[in-house]
Amino acid sequence: MKPEQAYEALRTFQIDTAYYQSLGALAGWDQRTYIPQKGHAHRARQFAALARLLHKRRTDPRIGEWLDAIEGSDLVADPESPEAANVREWRRDYERAVRVPDDLAVALAQAQSEGESAWESLREADDWAGFQPYLKRVLDLQREYAEAVGYETEPYDALLEDYEPGERAARLQTMFAELGRATRALLERIRGSEVRPPVEVLHRNFPVEVQRAVAYEVTGLLGYDLEGGRIDPTAHPFELSVGPGDVRITTRYYPDYFNAAFFGSVHEAGHAMYEQGLPAEHWGTPMGQAVSMGVHESQSRMWENLVGRSLGFWRFYYPKLQPRFAALADVGLEDFHRVVNAVRPSLIRVEADEVTYNLHILIRFELELALFRGELEVDDLPEAWNAKYRDYLGVTPPNFKDGVMQDVHWSGGMFGYFPSYTLGNVYAAQLFEAARRDLGDLEEAFARGAFAPLLEWLRDRVHRHGRRFPPRQLVERATGAAPSTDALVRYLNDRFGALYEL
Amino acid sequence: MKPEQAYEALRTFQIDTAYYQSLGALAGWDQRTYIPQKGHAHRARQFAALARLLHKRRTDPRIGEWLDAIEGSDLVADPESPEAANVREWRRDYERAVRVPDDLAVALAQAQSEGESAWESLREADDWAGFQPYLKRVLDLQREYAEAVGYETEPYDALLEDYEPGERAARLQTMFAELGRATRALLERIRGSEVRPPVEVLHRNFPVEVQRAVAYEVTGLLGYDLEGGRIDPTAHPFELSVGPGDVRITTRYYPDYFNAAFFGSVHEAGHAMYEQGLPAEHWGTPMGQAVSMGVHESQSRMWENLVGRSLGFWRFYYPKLQPRFAALADVGLEDFHRVVNAVRPSLIRVEADEVTYNLHILIRFELELALFRGELEVDDLPEAWNAKYRDYLGVTPPNFKDGVMQDVHWSGGMFGYFPSYTLGNVYAAQLFEAARRDLGDLEEAFARGAFAPLLEWLRDRVHRHGRRFPPRQLVERATGAAPSTDALVRYLNDRFGALYEL
Repeated sequence: MKPEQAYEALRTFQIDTAYYQSLGALAGWDQRTYIPQKGHAHRARQFAALARLLHKRRTDPRIGEWLDAIEGSDLVADPESPEAANVREWRRDYERAVRVPDDLAVALAQAQSEGESAWESLREADDWAGFQPYLKRVLDLQREYAEAVGYETEPYDALLEDYEPGERAARLQTMFAELGRATRALLERIRGSEVRPPVEVLHRNFPVEVQRAVAYEVTGLLGYDLEGGRIDPTAHPFELSVGPGDVRITTRYYPDYFNAAFFGSVHEAGHAMYEQGLPAEHWGTPMGQAVSMGVHESQSRMWENLVGRSLGFWRFYYPKLQPRFAALADVGLEDFHRVVNAVRPSLIRVEADEVTYNLHILIRFELELALFRGELEVDDLPEAWNAKYRDYLGVTPPNFKDGVMQDVHWSGGMFGYFPSYTLGNVYAAQLFEAARRDLGDLEEAFARGAFAPLLEWLRDRVHRHGRRFPPRQLVERATGAAPSTDALVRYLNDRFGALYEL
Repeated sequence: MKPEQAYEALRTFQIDTAYYQSLGALAGWDQRTYIPQKGHAHRARQFAALARLLHKRRTDPRIGEWLDAIEGSDLVADPESPEAANVREWRRDYERAVRVPDDLAVALAQAQSEGESAWESLREADDWAGFQPYLKRVLDLQREYAEAVGYETEPYDALLEDYEPGERAARLQTMFAELGRATRALLERIRGSEVRPPVEVLHRNFPVEVQRAVAYEVTGLLGYDLEGGRIDPTAHPFELSVGPGDVRITTRYYPDYFNAAFFGSVHEAGHAMYEQGLPAEHWGTPMGQAVSMGVHESQSRMWENLVGRSLGFWRFYYPKLQPRFAALADVGLEDFHRVVNAVRPSLIRVEADEVTYNLHILIRFELELALFRGELEVDDLPEAWNAKYRDYLGVTPPNFKDGVMQDVHWSGGMFGYFPSYTLGNVYAAQLFEAARRDLGDLEEAFARGAFAPLLEWLRDRVHRHGRRFPPRQLVERATGAAPSTDALVRYLNDRFGALYEL
């Protein structure tokens, strides 16, 4: 078969797979928004049937044959061409898929699904002893999975590869340790500050219907195209792409808490703007896909924090927000800006502020690594968890459910995922600094409601490339420097230094 | 291969196909409810990809091989066993699928999709000349389709078979002509009546939020299980089954018209209760599927009309409804019952009352039959349409859009579908009469809010059988008599004779 023919056959095959997958994506959205209570059992069976179909297609031997016919040909001579990038990524995905034996794939899917279900009820009951066997089973299977897909240095790298291609545990360890030191130093200084943001104002009455209108308004102003999206209520917010022209977000409304829906919507809209910026003409191929979870998170956290919690943004938006809520009548712009940036060490990751957030991730990363390096047993996990929380954040979990059992990730087998959150913060700060270098004073632009320049810059430097470059290379090309924590540390010191008058 | 093995392999294969199809069903629901405006193009491509997958699976030669290994074996010796029914229906579906050449299947799908799109805009523009070529193309392909799948007597029978297995044009012609004569005689008598229901009350102010609460309440009271369903707003109402425990309906709310949402919801809930009554353990096989469009429509129209427009029902429900709408404060039970049953010959099928509805269907059926028998050309369709409306209903369409172009069906190639509506009325009346024979005075039960006995009777006689018996046989077994229009004529004469004091 000629390379051109093989490429076309492979491309068509992969796009069809993507269409089936995108029917599943929609079913996932429905499962977390509007599904009737009694529809869950059928939905689980639908997903299982789809998973079998997708697994069969991803390991179809024809993929290997088509790739063999293309690789080394003129069609992929330019390594930065869409064809070369697609073929490189298809080969990577295929090799990883075929290395997992069918029975391991089935066992993983089942253990992870059972683990998540068990976590739901056992966390509620604060039952660590009951949860432990599930966690051990998932962990054993993940170890088996790491051996199956392979790695150069250590098993944890095999897991990282699923979320952050090319990333390595050893490098993260250094990077995160540096960030941890800088963060704890900043936190110490903040503890010594006399500034006390009046955080109670965030817990006043915020009618849900008004919050909903605000969520639509603010995400639209930032650049989320709502003609190709929507915002629905849900228990655990997420962004979900059905396909070009259909990128949805969800949020959670509390009548007595402002931050959740507002910053949650902006965060998910950041994910959505990335998806909306991927090249539609490459949909269903690697060139049309997001490159990594870390880069994805860099987009959500940039819009949520670097933009959405900036003084410039609030200069622009507070005059629009304030008149809508009676609760804010006596709250001035500066105080409001302070309270949405208040730093308070706490037990719960998803409620953490920008300064302490990375410490929550650091704890999880260190524990995961210890588990996979054989330096820690599941039995000793709660104690290790609590010790680190005391050490890094000065708080002690009073139970399992707000401690070691707080996140769903481990029960679902997502070891290697947590670093994406901090990588997102690292990439966000570095990209933002580079954008400011190119575009001038961004805060001043935000104060005028001008968010398009930043979005266009991100479209150009990040979104439109899909998986053309590996994530670290993408960040380096966009910013002119290898990824490091420098920009993030500068940003945190600047913003919180000013806010806390350090 | 042993028959038992072949059966299990075939069953598993078909159920997987059903899971894929049910992902498409959900996507269809979303397409008509919550899809973002810009998501339609991607959705159309998703459907096309799914259609290719489903077509390939439905014509998979392994189905023929498995069937060959089962047929004639002891496994299917009892013709009423689930296995025998499934095998019989799988064979039928498979033979019909493989007779359609791939290129015809593609051409049909494309022409029908283009026809529906063209209809949307050309109907709006009242452009019959522009629409004609689309209609001719669809009609030609439907003729080709009829030849491909085959028939005993005439091509139209091949189309009927898709909606009402075993039904024949010649038999419908006789049945519908009788019904037409009886209906026109009743209509003549109603025209002479001095009773004038005060229909303007239906066009007063009915706040949408209250209508929505009423739709949930009334469908729940009738027996629609809303823990396994939901009601969403849409432009063109429909019922949609994702699977067991997930059977949804939609409706359309007008703030100045009562009937649309109320009777629309009850109608769709009738469809939904049928789907909820299908045996879940047979889901994905013929034993778990609705038997025909006519029987489906008998369920929706029974709950909408024979129950929902009965005096017994309103004795029960009007005291609940009236206090909710200020608009009804001065309207008594008897007047309200009269206005929701008002008979008025009109141009538009979907707005027709129970008496004239079947005349709208009769017109379409006669025209379809003439087209397929070569007695009528597309060019002459508008004139033939208008002549029949003058003759049967005494009204003359002032344009194409409220005349020959009013329904989407033909543009989408659904010739042979319209008879299902009247068959639904015929079956509904016959089933209802039989239920009353078994259960006693149903109206009296309705007046007490007792709808469960009727639903249980339908579950037992109709729902639980899936496709075990062909539709006519199902109705005959349920009622003890071959399907005929007698019960419907008796019912219409009784109800409207009383209402119009004839």
